[in-house]
Amino acid sequence: MSAEAAAQLIPNGCTVGMSGFTGAGYPKAVPKALASRIEKLNEVGERFKINIWTGASTAPELDGELAKVDGINMRLPFQSDPICRAKINDGTMDYIDIHLSEVSQYAWSGFLGKMNIALVEVSGILEDGRLIPSSAIGNNKTWLEQADHIILEVNSGQSSGLEGMHDVYYGTALPPNRKPIMITNPTDRIGEKYLQCDLSKVIAVVETNAPDRNSPFSAPDEVSHRIAGHILDFFKREIEIGRLPPELLPIQSGVGNIPNAVLEGLDAGPFRNLTGFTEVIQDGMLKMLKSGTMTAVSSTAFSLSPAAMQELNDNIDFYRERIILRQQDISNHPELIRRLGVIAMNGLIEADIYGNVNSTHIMGSRMMNGIGGSGDFARNGYLSIFVTPSTAKNGTISAIVPMVSHVDHTEHDVKVVVTEYGLADLRGLSPRQRALKIINNCAHPDFRPRLLDYFERACASGRGMHTPHLLGEALSWHQRYEETGKM
Amino acid sequence: MSAEAAAQLIPNGCTVGMSGFTGAGYPKAVPKALASRIEKLNEVGERFKINIWTGASTAPELDGELAKVDGINMRLPFQSDPICRAKINDGTMDYIDIHLSEVSQYAWSGFLGKMNIALVEVSGILEDGRLIPSSAIGNNKTWLEQADHIILEVNSGQSSGLEGMHDVYYGTALPPNRKPIMITNPTDRIGEKYLQCDLSKVIAVVETNAPDRNSPFSAPDEVSHRIAGHILDFFKREIEIGRLPPELLPIQSGVGNIPNAVLEGLDAGPFRNLTGFTEVIQDGMLKMLKSGTMTAVSSTAFSLSPAAMQELNDNIDFYRERIILRQQDISNHPELIRRLGVIAMNGLIEADIYGNVNSTHIMGSRMMNGIGGSGDFARNGYLSIFVTPSTAKNGTISAIVPMVSHVDHTEHDVKVVVTEYGLADLRGLSPRQRALKIINNCAHPDFRPRLLDYFERACASGRGMHTPHLLGEALSWHQRYEETGKM
Repeated sequence: MSAEAAAQLIPNGCTVGMSGFTGAGYPKAVPKALASRIEKLNEVGERFKINIWTGASTAPELDGELAKVDGINMRLPFQSDPICRAKINDGTMDYIDIHLSEVSQYAWSGFLGKMNIALVEVSGILEDGRLIPSSAIGNNKTWLEQADHIILEVNSGQSSGLEGMHDVYYGTALPPNRKPIMITNPTDRIGEKYLQCDLSKVIAVVETNAPDRNSPFSAPDEVSHRIAGHILDFFKREIEIGRLPPELLPIQSGVGNIPNAVLEGLDAGPFRNLTGFTEVIQDGMLKMLKSGTMTAVSSTAFSLSPAAMQELNDNIDFYRERIILRQQDISNHPELIRRLGVIAMNGLIEADIYGNVNSTHIMGSRMMNGIGGSGDFARNGYLSIFVTPSTAKNGTISAIVPMVSHVDHTEHDVKVVVTEYGLADLRGLSPRQRALKIINNCAHPDFRPRLLDYFERACASGRGMHTPHLLGEALSWHQRYEETGKM
Repeated sequence: MSAEAAAQLIPNGCTVGMSGFTGAGYPKAVPKALASRIEKLNEVGERFKINIWTGASTAPELDGELAKVDGINMRLPFQSDPICRAKINDGTMDYIDIHLSEVSQYAWSGFLGKMNIALVEVSGILEDGRLIPSSAIGNNKTWLEQADHIILEVNSGQSSGLEGMHDVYYGTALPPNRKPIMITNPTDRIGEKYLQCDLSKVIAVVETNAPDRNSPFSAPDEVSHRIAGHILDFFKREIEIGRLPPELLPIQSGVGNIPNAVLEGLDAGPFRNLTGFTEVIQDGMLKMLKSGTMTAVSSTAFSLSPAAMQELNDNIDFYRERIILRQQDISNHPELIRRLGVIAMNGLIEADIYGNVNSTHIMGSRMMNGIGGSGDFARNGYLSIFVTPSTAKNGTISAIVPMVSHVDHTEHDVKVVVTEYGLADLRGLSPRQRALKIINNCAHPDFRPRLLDYFERACASGRGMHTPHLLGEALSWHQRYEETGKM
């Protein structure tokens, strides 16, 4: 049926599980049609809001359109849309920032209430009713199982070559019935190529033909190059002293220009036969597969530039042998991340001198995007590396502060911090040792003297030498930024 | 040989891996003899310091004695000794607060440098050289494997009935060679009853006959009773609506009077056939085994009162059938905690209105004990419950504050907060919803109006409505306490 007709089937106040992970595999027509319907209702003074659960971020035609018409009551678990973000921060939309690996468990266990409708993009439907997943699996398996009703968008714009790339695992369960997940290598297949679907629950099938949100990445700049260089040097040293194997360990890389640049740096480095165990495949990883630097990647989604998407589609047979797409409760599973010994590399908003990391909040209160899978990977990985330029907003903000204004990754979970100025290896250091290393290796030179001054005065304050702080000043850098426009 | 002779074999500046977990199974003679030796050296102006890695906390005759003579350079991963704490907080001892499940991985992977000596208490040595573990396994397997030299304390004061209670797993490996850990039930045995030991590394065997540090628990008071009551009601409701099975899920309980009181409350409740998957067996769990409320417990150590220790020893055959002691990298393993769906119950120092938890720091700078295993269980468990009286220090400190002064468990990982006033179920709530629930359900009535006032003014500040904060006031409660003696 038409997207408009399908959108009519979504009732006010309901909870919809939508496909979509990092701009891939989200439904492209029905959310837009629903937004139009809501806009018309708004014009006559009626309100219409739904709760939206996804895999992760989607695109303007989903989060953006629905947020614009105030159509979202509650949103989880990750978003990166500017309009959505504005609504969260002005208090008109509730947002629940959950570890991506836990969403499916939350839904299954009933912690979040009932899901009424699953709205899922697929790239095809088999004769027997099984579904060919699209460019992301995300939480689709769970949504199809948990929802009362199902609306499918069949996107013929997705490459038919995606068929066979997926591995949907039907061995999950709620405790006490869980079994070990028998993956010991990123390339292990343990599931099925298709999503099962109870056809009696399908209330609409809508045909679409539209590309994913494929944003170009910025070309790596000098800052990214230097960050990548520090990480390369670090890996080389770790291999030399026998703390990492020559082919490293499976790599997870967060989304964004800097992590992508680090991947490009790795591709240019001396490493071979690398593997990836990650949640998103960006351009950098595709290049590593192409060049042979990387032999295989496990992920739950793509996030590619238009050029890289073309490359993928042009050589889909090559990539299908090297890429496995899994549901996100498997791609991000703590059991697997710990077992495989994943090297987690993620961006941050700010880190403090003691190694606590804020990945989500601007100046302590305003949500940026969300924690995404960074907590899944950093907490249970073998190495957790956080990367950032040393400053933001033309040097007015220091990424290294006395105390972070929000904590997403605690001092216990952050092993390495890297900026363009250097790398701080925090393993085996006490908080005061970490402070000196982070300030001297990572902070921008313009901010170093004041960070050192804070640290030294905190040490001299007599308030306690384990994690010296001056409570009256700890958050003053953020206050100063809000008052003067510079930290 | 004598403890004094063995202590002579420990060189200045070395790293010693000592047994001991929560006051159980620590070496009782050699550390004391070493402290005497250091005291004599101090008297003639010489310094002598070692690095100490343990399982968790030990006892006055280890941490206390060695801290008193300034004999500890660096200490990890958990301590609870008053003298040790004072040295950490005056800056004379470095302390690294690591998740208990990760210590062994850190040591094996070389992240912490070389271990020179393992000093391990055992309860006996077999003819073939294998060791009968004592009342805690902790990191002993790893220390025996990693150290260049081994000193054994054979404690005949430990019950001979401990033999057979242990399950030492030799299937661990560093990535990329890790395999699934095939435990699907807390009672599964996957290892051996004895510790393997390379006899060529043994440089001393010292005989002792001394009890563990067995501190009596306070009798549960009114506050504990009420906290336990709220948790019981919560469990009953979760079972009723089908979100927990009637026998609950494996329980982890932190160390201390309040968690112990919760266990006593559970024992008096309607639940049967419970199991435990925890790091420490306290009096409460022993009683639950005795009464039949609990059928089996997996742990790495005991922490019993003298009376409970007597009960254990008097009925060791009964308890040996129901208790499995594992090494702490298994008892606290993220893979197993996630798979089994552990219900994690831990104490806290303070929580903020948005559900961030501080488990370690007093007023942001001074270390109390350490994170211990609370992060292992809370992060990967099915439910994470944090319990605390609503106030401390005769009502001068509120356990609920606008912003915690240190974060050990982030908003993403804290599912339930409980005080004597009530329980806040934070699952599926946005930060502002959480704030109202925590203030209204958990905060002490004396502090509620001011918490609400802070929250409302933060909401009205225009700084951002996702996690509203007033940066200039967020830590002012702690400052006020330090300046006036009352928050």
